[in-house]
Amino acid sequence: MELAQYFPVWDQLTAQQQQTLLESASRQNVKKGTVLHNGGADCTGLLLVCSGQLRAYILSEEGREITLYRLFEMDICLFSASCMMHSIQFDITVEAERDTTFWLIPAEVYKNMMEASAPLANYTNEIMASRFSEVMWLMEQIMWKSFDQRLASFLLEEAGLEGSNQLKLTHEIIGNHLGSAREVVTRMLRYFQNEGMVRLSRGTVELVDLEKLKNLAKA
Amino acid sequence: MELAQYFPVWDQLTAQQQQTLLESASRQNVKKGTVLHNGGADCTGLLLVCSGQLRAYILSEEGREITLYRLFEMDICLFSASCMMHSIQFDITVEAERDTTFWLIPAEVYKNMMEASAPLANYTNEIMASRFSEVMWLMEQIMWKSFDQRLASFLLEEAGLEGSNQLKLTHEIIGNHLGSAREVVTRMLRYFQNEGMVRLSRGTVELVDLEKLKNLAKA
Repeated sequence: MELAQYFPVWDQLTAQQQQTLLESASRQNVKKGTVLHNGGADCTGLLLVCSGQLRAYILSEEGREITLYRLFEMDICLFSASCMMHSIQFDITVEAERDTTFWLIPAEVYKNMMEASAPLANYTNEIMASRFSEVMWLMEQIMWKSFDQRLASFLLEEAGLEGSNQLKLTHEIIGNHLGSAREVVTRMLRYFQNEGMVRLSRGTVELVDLEKLKNLAKA
Repeated sequence: MELAQYFPVWDQLTAQQQQTLLESASRQNVKKGTVLHNGGADCTGLLLVCSGQLRAYILSEEGREITLYRLFEMDICLFSASCMMHSIQFDITVEAERDTTFWLIPAEVYKNMMEASAPLANYTNEIMASRFSEVMWLMEQIMWKSFDQRLASFLLEEAGLEGSNQLKLTHEIIGNHLGSAREVVTRMLRYFQNEGMVRLSRGTVELVDLEKLKNLAKA
């Protein structure tokens, strides 16, 4: 597939701008587990996902993680190019959760184009608003929902993404998604197991009562 | 003071756009405590603060609050016009924390102008990135910092805003800022008092050991 099919508002760019993009964007493949962008240390550029799945998260000084959002086919990762806007004063880490193919657009090229193109600037606004909304949703979850509700929501979301109720996830990985210690996850999963909602085995969580999990997540 | 002095990128708008703004913006005064925007119910428009102070916060279903950020002179409140971008999928409440004067710009006028003007669209991007950064900072505080650190930071910030170490704040109001129950605030303030950091009296918190509070906030 060509860049033109993935790039938003392509038809609203000038021929010159399209040419610049074609010359500067590069298509890359990475294996599952690759860290594509690591906080404030670098200005990787914009990532335009062709296929696969990326995860954006923040890290505490002690190494605890919390997942902010995921990016799928056709999604754009702006914050891996945070150097292009001086008001972006936070750092995220982006890692490939599956083998992923993406277009990499240099931050400088995008920034210059956005400054000249109202359609691209407005599209960028929409992307930012949409990530902002995901983070606000997450903050509301953290502030107002209890951990059992968040864990139930997370398991259901994962099952949806994987297309399976048999999830290959360690308790530590779940903790990293939710910003919680492994012990807290283990304790709650055991409670879920006692309640008949999941079945646990080494490295696997099987969802057995989806109805009950959904009710808990909604509570 | 005239709108031109408050409106960002005024000089980069066309004469026609400037004229439209002058005709549609209205200057308003509100008393301390007035709620200017209330969640998703209305699309109030953009607020351009001339003087005073606004507070943006979210509310849980149970009525608990948490302060997201404040707006001062020359700041713009975008999210009171969230209808202008369909990707903004969250609701905030905006209230005047002091008597406040502001320009109100109708959402539709701003939206149309932004779609035509790359400078305005890019400026809007910077505003959004800057609010996003404030919310990310808050989320990191909530996730990684303990409540004593957050309370110490909050008291120091308030003292800076008020220009006084004598803060007229009930424990309930502090709880509303931090998303915590009143009892939790009271318990921690008593601990601070025992440690010689604050002195409590009815409706007042006096900061008495700034050095100790700063060390705690930084910890």
